[in-house]
Amino acid sequence: METGVALFEKEKPIPPYVRVSATSLKRVVRDIFVSLGLSGFDAEIVADVLVTADLMGISSHGVQRVERYVAGIENGAVNVNPDMKFTIDYGAIALLDADNGLGHIAGLKAMRMAIEKARLHGVGLVLVKHSHHYGIAGYYALKAVEEGMIGLSTTNSEALVAYIGSVERYLGTNPIAFAAPRRNPPPLLYDGALSIIPVGKIEVYSKTGREIPSGWVISRTGEILHGDARRVYEAIKSREAAILPLGGYLEEYGGHKGSGLALIVEIICGVLSGAAWGIHVGYTTVKNANVGHAFAAIDISKFMDLGLFYDRIEQLINEVKSLKKSPHVEKIWIPGEKAWLTMQTRLKIGIPIHLNIFRKLEEIARKHGVLFDVEVLEERLT
Amino acid sequence: METGVALFEKEKPIPPYVRVSATSLKRVVRDIFVSLGLSGFDAEIVADVLVTADLMGISSHGVQRVERYVAGIENGAVNVNPDMKFTIDYGAIALLDADNGLGHIAGLKAMRMAIEKARLHGVGLVLVKHSHHYGIAGYYALKAVEEGMIGLSTTNSEALVAYIGSVERYLGTNPIAFAAPRRNPPPLLYDGALSIIPVGKIEVYSKTGREIPSGWVISRTGEILHGDARRVYEAIKSREAAILPLGGYLEEYGGHKGSGLALIVEIICGVLSGAAWGIHVGYTTVKNANVGHAFAAIDISKFMDLGLFYDRIEQLINEVKSLKKSPHVEKIWIPGEKAWLTMQTRLKIGIPIHLNIFRKLEEIARKHGVLFDVEVLEERLT
Repeated sequence: METGVALFEKEKPIPPYVRVSATSLKRVVRDIFVSLGLSGFDAEIVADVLVTADLMGISSHGVQRVERYVAGIENGAVNVNPDMKFTIDYGAIALLDADNGLGHIAGLKAMRMAIEKARLHGVGLVLVKHSHHYGIAGYYALKAVEEGMIGLSTTNSEALVAYIGSVERYLGTNPIAFAAPRRNPPPLLYDGALSIIPVGKIEVYSKTGREIPSGWVISRTGEILHGDARRVYEAIKSREAAILPLGGYLEEYGGHKGSGLALIVEIICGVLSGAAWGIHVGYTTVKNANVGHAFAAIDISKFMDLGLFYDRIEQLINEVKSLKKSPHVEKIWIPGEKAWLTMQTRLKIGIPIHLNIFRKLEEIARKHGVLFDVEVLEERLT
Repeated sequence: METGVALFEKEKPIPPYVRVSATSLKRVVRDIFVSLGLSGFDAEIVADVLVTADLMGISSHGVQRVERYVAGIENGAVNVNPDMKFTIDYGAIALLDADNGLGHIAGLKAMRMAIEKARLHGVGLVLVKHSHHYGIAGYYALKAVEEGMIGLSTTNSEALVAYIGSVERYLGTNPIAFAAPRRNPPPLLYDGALSIIPVGKIEVYSKTGREIPSGWVISRTGEILHGDARRVYEAIKSREAAILPLGGYLEEYGGHKGSGLALIVEIICGVLSGAAWGIHVGYTTVKNANVGHAFAAIDISKFMDLGLFYDRIEQLINEVKSLKKSPHVEKIWIPGEKAWLTMQTRLKIGIPIHLNIFRKLEEIARKHGVLFDVEVLEERLT
């Protein structure tokens, strides 16, 4: 089944897992959220963001998060029926109060507003406060691309990253997403956290027994943790360690840059929006988590004919792909290309879901009286 | 003279050098550009940007660049009497055609337009094409701060950085500057290139005989160059090597992030503006260098009372400065703090100018009939 020439997966699944159809997975996730009190409209958005992450090969932000969101709903941290309102709407900017609803719903609403603002004013900037985790930043940036615009999206998140010179968690991983349209897919999509690595990577290393290289994680005593991935992962889970910022420890390789850029995200998404920042940003199961996001859209057609933009970005991409390759790589990739190929592949052969996650989803569905009719296309148990 | 308690210099001067008064240095630099045909108004801007860089301790972008700009003017690459026009002015966006004038003049004009746009629409985005090198990105971001706004500024530049997976120079160092006002100075000012280090650092290492650590520079054959700084610097000067992006070589420490972010800068400043991008961006002495810049301003007062913003950013900064310190640092710094302290120091005791640069400036002044009355406050020749 996985023998087609064009099949590509950015993230290789680790057995035991099952491959399931995206459509059926999305339907079940949607139904779970409806059973918990979300409107069908809102539940569809959340399910779409989560399943899109799995399709793109970003399983850390995919349906494995359902458990966490459900916990937040069950303990009342997440408002299932939020009254999301634009409390500021001025020219090219707006501020959305997400009323403690899920970030995905707020994110889509805010991005659509940014797009409308861009259509009217050339650019639109929309901030969000009183929100929760919003999944993959790239999802929202791509909404602008659907309108022939450039999209930007960023968010703060629970403190996990050490600011330069410190050994404590203060900054979120604070991803920045940027998407630009092309004449033909895939669009260019950059989506990267400002931590040196995603925390999910350490979890994967701990499961697969790989060694953690030096320079990713720092302990509260100032020791750079590396080697045994289980020990490093435990230190992070028990809050005894922080992830280093992009650029690593201190200034030699640019730790002031990664932590400076992450600080900018805290200022825009937190300080300026009225949301929380740094250590005050809550996890999904925390009341008043007050996560903040920012969305921007730029209407390309106000700067130049869209056809000309397409020609120009195509030339840029062709030039980059034709650069002299390092002896350590087989090809040069454009941001978003791997995620797009993974999506095409998984739409064909299904999304691999780790067996533990699959069983957890089934348990949640049963508990809430939701029919668990996820279509399994393949089982890979060992 | 340098014994005051509060004296601080981010960049320690290397003898032989002279310390000169900022005012007299700025006057002479201004006069040099006037003698070359710039208007007094324009020459004052260029001199202010350059001397501000020296005051901040960013000598790589200070008056040592005068020689390069003069060469560009003399060979006709730089238009001394540009007809800079906003060819697009639509809602919250604008595009400035810099008519091959110096980037500093275009930059200030564009940033002022972004500020006006922000005042009217909450946010303003202004792109610039047909420009030249604009000096320090932070200078323009700070202009928004003077108006109680958040300022952003970025530019592309001559190709010097290898895109991930490649061993060739393609991307510029592409700095991003962000500035936010505070109740009392210094404002928060982040100004950092998306290369792992500034090229000037390798030059300094080569002059002082320090070893280059592994991971900064890659040769065209895919070898990571390190050790002997003179050899590494020669390889860069002869275009046999490229600087690595923030995040370093390949993906392990995030080279896809640094080069992805630098690619975004090329798309906004180059592809979207109508300027050049990547390898097509010219040095100051190249005709139609076609450097592109982007400027944005956000009017804080449209989001919240400025006093409240000041309270909130002060809390953020106090929290960051109180974080548990790494055993390897004496204190935790906020972006822009070192530059500001350096500026206060140098306004008092003078700007250190390397003797070679000082003599070169004198030679240029004499050649153009400009009185070289730079006030020397101190000589440190050995």
